[in-house]
Amino acid sequence: MKVVRCEKNPLIRPEDVRPSREDFQVDGVFNCGAVKYGEETILLCRVAESVICDSREIKIPIVEEQEGKDQIRIITLVKEEHPELDFSDSRSIHNREGKCVYLTSLSHLRIARSRDGVNFRIDDEAFVFPNAKEESWGMEDPRITQIGDTYYVNYTSVTPHGAATSLLITKDFKTCTRKGVIFAPENKDVTIFPEKIGGKYVAFNRPVPCGIGNPDMWLAQSPDLLHWGEQKHFCGISEESSWENGRIGGGAVPFRTEKGWVMIYHGADRQGRYCLGAFLLDLEDPSRVLAKTSGPILEPETDYENFGFFNEVVFTCGCIQEEDNVIIYYGAADDKICRADIKLHDLLDELQT
Amino acid sequence: MKVVRCEKNPLIRPEDVRPSREDFQVDGVFNCGAVKYGEETILLCRVAESVICDSREIKIPIVEEQEGKDQIRIITLVKEEHPELDFSDSRSIHNREGKCVYLTSLSHLRIARSRDGVNFRIDDEAFVFPNAKEESWGMEDPRITQIGDTYYVNYTSVTPHGAATSLLITKDFKTCTRKGVIFAPENKDVTIFPEKIGGKYVAFNRPVPCGIGNPDMWLAQSPDLLHWGEQKHFCGISEESSWENGRIGGGAVPFRTEKGWVMIYHGADRQGRYCLGAFLLDLEDPSRVLAKTSGPILEPETDYENFGFFNEVVFTCGCIQEEDNVIIYYGAADDKICRADIKLHDLLDELQT
Repeated sequence: MKVVRCEKNPLIRPEDVRPSREDFQVDGVFNCGAVKYGEETILLCRVAESVICDSREIKIPIVEEQEGKDQIRIITLVKEEHPELDFSDSRSIHNREGKCVYLTSLSHLRIARSRDGVNFRIDDEAFVFPNAKEESWGMEDPRITQIGDTYYVNYTSVTPHGAATSLLITKDFKTCTRKGVIFAPENKDVTIFPEKIGGKYVAFNRPVPCGIGNPDMWLAQSPDLLHWGEQKHFCGISEESSWENGRIGGGAVPFRTEKGWVMIYHGADRQGRYCLGAFLLDLEDPSRVLAKTSGPILEPETDYENFGFFNEVVFTCGCIQEEDNVIIYYGAADDKICRADIKLHDLLDELQT
Repeated sequence: MKVVRCEKNPLIRPEDVRPSREDFQVDGVFNCGAVKYGEETILLCRVAESVICDSREIKIPIVEEQEGKDQIRIITLVKEEHPELDFSDSRSIHNREGKCVYLTSLSHLRIARSRDGVNFRIDDEAFVFPNAKEESWGMEDPRITQIGDTYYVNYTSVTPHGAATSLLITKDFKTCTRKGVIFAPENKDVTIFPEKIGGKYVAFNRPVPCGIGNPDMWLAQSPDLLHWGEQKHFCGISEESSWENGRIGGGAVPFRTEKGWVMIYHGADRQGRYCLGAFLLDLEDPSRVLAKTSGPILEPETDYENFGFFNEVVFTCGCIQEEDNVIIYYGAADDKICRADIKLHDLLDELQT
């Protein structure tokens, strides 16, 4: 199967994005939801920012309510004063028990627009910035599901209490309304199908149980997109295939084809190397897997995928299908946005052999 | 505040319960939902059973579908052949990474009935036995919420994929209908309020996030008891009070008083010693805590609470309020059912000082 990386990759890099404050730097622009809106392709990008500082210290930005207003508070940690903390992960700081006690960056959601799907103009301001109450540690990895004229954006809402999934809605990509936490922590990588199936909305979600079980994919149903239940285990990590034996989770929003629902998902190995695979699901009952790719359809190979904020990652939150072309927008090495195209008939062939 | 343990404690012991198979032994009867049904008090008890075997080995009972039928399958582990497994926890077997790979017992739900709330007749058969699809590793810790003439029973549904919370309903405590998983794993200790508040059903739940966050209590809302959302962090483990610095979770189903909702909850320290506390919550907005007991209202003190299948545990899934008396039915040391009474005015006094 031929997956064609865009010659202009990476399409968006950290240096293309204006920081939201003078003392911030953009660590990454990645993991974007993708949708056609009028004549334009809209990418809703995760922009991760940190506070500029020297290497002896780490300055952690969080959102806090102060005097009735949301404000950025910066927590400064001088590394050598904290032998009890583990600073080795570029993304987060852990204590001795292995618990994540801080993220190193604060993510918000930013819009990039394009007429050709390749050359993007990036907004100077956030589309939505985390608030103290719901996302004091950031908003991450948005997926956009269009239903009628409304765009439902689910995203990881991080607080010191955990990484949950929340929902917001927009009709114009100018203003939005928050709809609260739809899946309690730890639960990410939610992808909502673009129509009701059997009278209910359906979504993949990826809880991370602590005691029993693995970071597997589950399927939930909802009457209203806000309240979810009827959870069923959908697909577990693979014991055999090493590329997806660490974790597995929803990727792009599923799209309908004549053969079934197609969903591009991600799998990671135990070292945290992220690749993409695909499912073909029954149109009437998406818990029924018609086919699944055995190996990755896209894996970190280029320099821009192998080196970055977190190495060896390709990760998608959105793709756009236009007739026989499937455009996968993906985060590369947790800091850039790239594009790869697959012919739908190739993908379906792969999924049926 | 005076909490009076019943003189006849423990009211139900493992030897009072008939095993569901000849090769099974009852390890524990504990953590029961409680409700008045006609003239009787009904306790819906968790009965944990294991396979009789000698101490060199462990025989693990699980429910599996074989030839289209649910069957018990017994997995035999000779301990010395598995140096990679940790058998030190009486409740579960862990691998080197600390993941629970088996439970040592299989729990089902059994009814006990009483006219005086002290002397119970225990059914010879399960009220409901785990099925292969939804609870292959057991059904645990039921709570009963009566709404009109229907009893909503939520319970921990355990499979190799995790410990989730499921719902079943009954009108007669003879037959029941399963309603599926309402909270994805890891999420236990769900208590559903007995009426809509502000137009929605409300439930405490206790997710256990793996990366960020602690085993804290969250509050969710639902239009229909089957689909839940609008999750809000309610109360975290205490950093100061050592008795509840490990985990905290819903206990008995909340009951309405003139002063507010009362909920008896549990807290455990980091060594796994479980005690009970209480919340007083705003009638219109139960996320508003009016008061919380600072110390435990009941803690393991007697021999039957200190010694058992898992030592030093008092844990409630149900209490019955009758005028000024609050009867707490609780599991003691994870193997017996006990009763303790508190005067409601004493509890409310405690909660208002």
